Amino acid sequence: MKIAIIGAGAIGLLFSYYLNQKHEVTLYTRTSDQAEMIQSRGIHLIDGGLSEVGKVTAKPIELWVGAEDLTIITVKQYQLQSILPQMSEYSEGKGTLLFLQNGMGHLKLLSDLKVENIYLGSVEHGAARLNGNTVSHNGHGVTRTSVFKGNKTLLENLVRTCPEGFQLTLEPDFQEILVKKLIVNAVINPLTAAFRVENGTLIRNPFFYQIVIQLFDEVAKVLHLKDKDDHFGNVVSVCEKTSTNRSSMLKDIEAGRETEVDSILGYLLEEAQNKQMTAPLIYNYYQLIKGIEYQKEGSV
Amino acid sequence: MKIAIIGAGAIGLLFSYYLNQKHEVTLYTRTSDQAEMIQSRGIHLIDGGLSEVGKVTAKPIELWVGAEDLTIITVKQYQLQSILPQMSEYSEGKGTLLFLQNGMGHLKLLSDLKVENIYLGSVEHGAARLNGNTVSHNGHGVTRTSVFKGNKTLLENLVRTCPEGFQLTLEPDFQEILVKKLIVNAVINPLTAAFRVENGTLIRNPFFYQIVIQLFDEVAKVLHLKDKDDHFGNVVSVCEKTSTNRSSMLKDIEAGRETEVDSILGYLLEEAQNKQMTAPLIYNYYQLIKGIEYQKEGSV
Repeated sequence: MKIAIIGAGAIGLLFSYYLNQKHEVTLYTRTSDQAEMIQSRGIHLIDGGLSEVGKVTAKPIELWVGAEDLTIITVKQYQLQSILPQMSEYSEGKGTLLFLQNGMGHLKLLSDLKVENIYLGSVEHGAARLNGNTVSHNGHGVTRTSVFKGNKTLLENLVRTCPEGFQLTLEPDFQEILVKKLIVNAVINPLTAAFRVENGTLIRNPFFYQIVIQLFDEVAKVLHLKDKDDHFGNVVSVCEKTSTNRSSMLKDIEAGRETEVDSILGYLLEEAQNKQMTAPLIYNYYQLIKGIEYQKEGSV
Repeated sequence: MKIAIIGAGAIGLLFSYYLNQKHEVTLYTRTSDQAEMIQSRGIHLIDGGLSEVGKVTAKPIELWVGAEDLTIITVKQYQLQSILPQMSEYSEGKGTLLFLQNGMGHLKLLSDLKVENIYLGSVEHGAARLNGNTVSHNGHGVTRTSVFKGNKTLLENLVRTCPEGFQLTLEPDFQEILVKKLIVNAVINPLTAAFRVENGTLIRNPFFYQIVIQLFDEVAKVLHLKDKDDHFGNVVSVCEKTSTNRSSMLKDIEAGRETEVDSILGYLLEEAQNKQMTAPLIYNYYQLIKGIEYQKEGSV
């Protein structure tokens, strides 16, 4: 089928490279420079010792008019606001969108969207954008997807046709897959960014591990988690499997970029407020990451 | 009078340099190398653009036998355990000691000490040891002292004879002066060390400032503070006055040295436990600083 991919960060490049093997992908980028670069040189995928190049059609985002069967939105959650009006305008009640953002803050935006089918996904790959047309595939995971509204026809098609080494799964409950990822992101991302350490250090350093437990407990309380032990086991397992990785939030902090803290801890703070709960650790790490971002802006 | 000063860190060097102007000081050092260096070259004091040298008698700690009228103990709180037996052995119910440690964890050790007079003090000078016989006097404050047990004769003498630029005050309540310093240390030290910023950044960065408020509130709760606003004003005022200083805990962290977190946040955690209160922020920053120390040891 014809697939549009919005956003040429690590996830956008990764999905474009793989899905183009089975589908006709057009990658929409923020700048026309990047579109030209990808159009002329292809996407370079680095995977361990291997280096591959895949040809992909690329265009600047302004040219997206909903012409493809499925559009996959890979931009950060805080960038959604600026592209959703365009999605709405051209969809006019039709069309199919798959959102791959971290966190859960975007769900309330999607409810208002006049689109026929909306899918949600959670990406468990490790990937880093090395430059405008190069992505490093650091960890092979799966992409869990689910239906948010509408029918699942296109999603089933996508899951059935996923290329080798790039598995997609179709799950019954979108809340569940997003919550699972949210918890991992809420614990690992802020702590690694605050301590400036790799993921594995959170469980190897016995003092940092106490903070992992403390923050996880608070997140579990705010989310009214029933299967708490499973989720904690999942956090530890992600730390183990991605032991030498630097989390996306740590990488954002090191590069002086805006982080996704609003869609992760910011969302949990809102949840706590709605439920009239105090969440001192979540509040503390929200302010801490915001404070580091503020320092990087050179405002102090 | 004859004064012994135990410990040749920043505070030990500073007190030796100034008090020797009016008294006969012997400075006791941990290593005989440092004693020889100070004995032969004197103490170099750097104060703004000025550089002065003061001759002081220096000996290794093993030679202390309580021969002086007053002994001032300037070592860190966590080093007290190793020297108190020596103090006890030679004092035999007589003698006069002045303790200048941060925190309040050492008070329970002092109650058991068989010494006639025990004084406590809180140093509000900014000072940094540059090498074994050089100290930089970065901020001129006062040293607040008070009687813990015994009579105040020698302390009054010391306060009356303090040299110019090095004021000592005699205060009625030792709890009050230690609590005031403890609060400042409990908020400014761990946060500057965790964020790796100068003292002033804590109040200039609006997000870090929220954490200052959050941690201070918890400290105030644990200590059952009555004059909360005054103490908060004092914390802010210290951040302003020492705006470009790096706190002692930050300097310890940067130099890979053990910090005083046990005598500061560790003490507050015990207090919280005794009062059956939860103190999530204090717990968090205690573990965080311990975790950074652990990383520096190269254990991970």
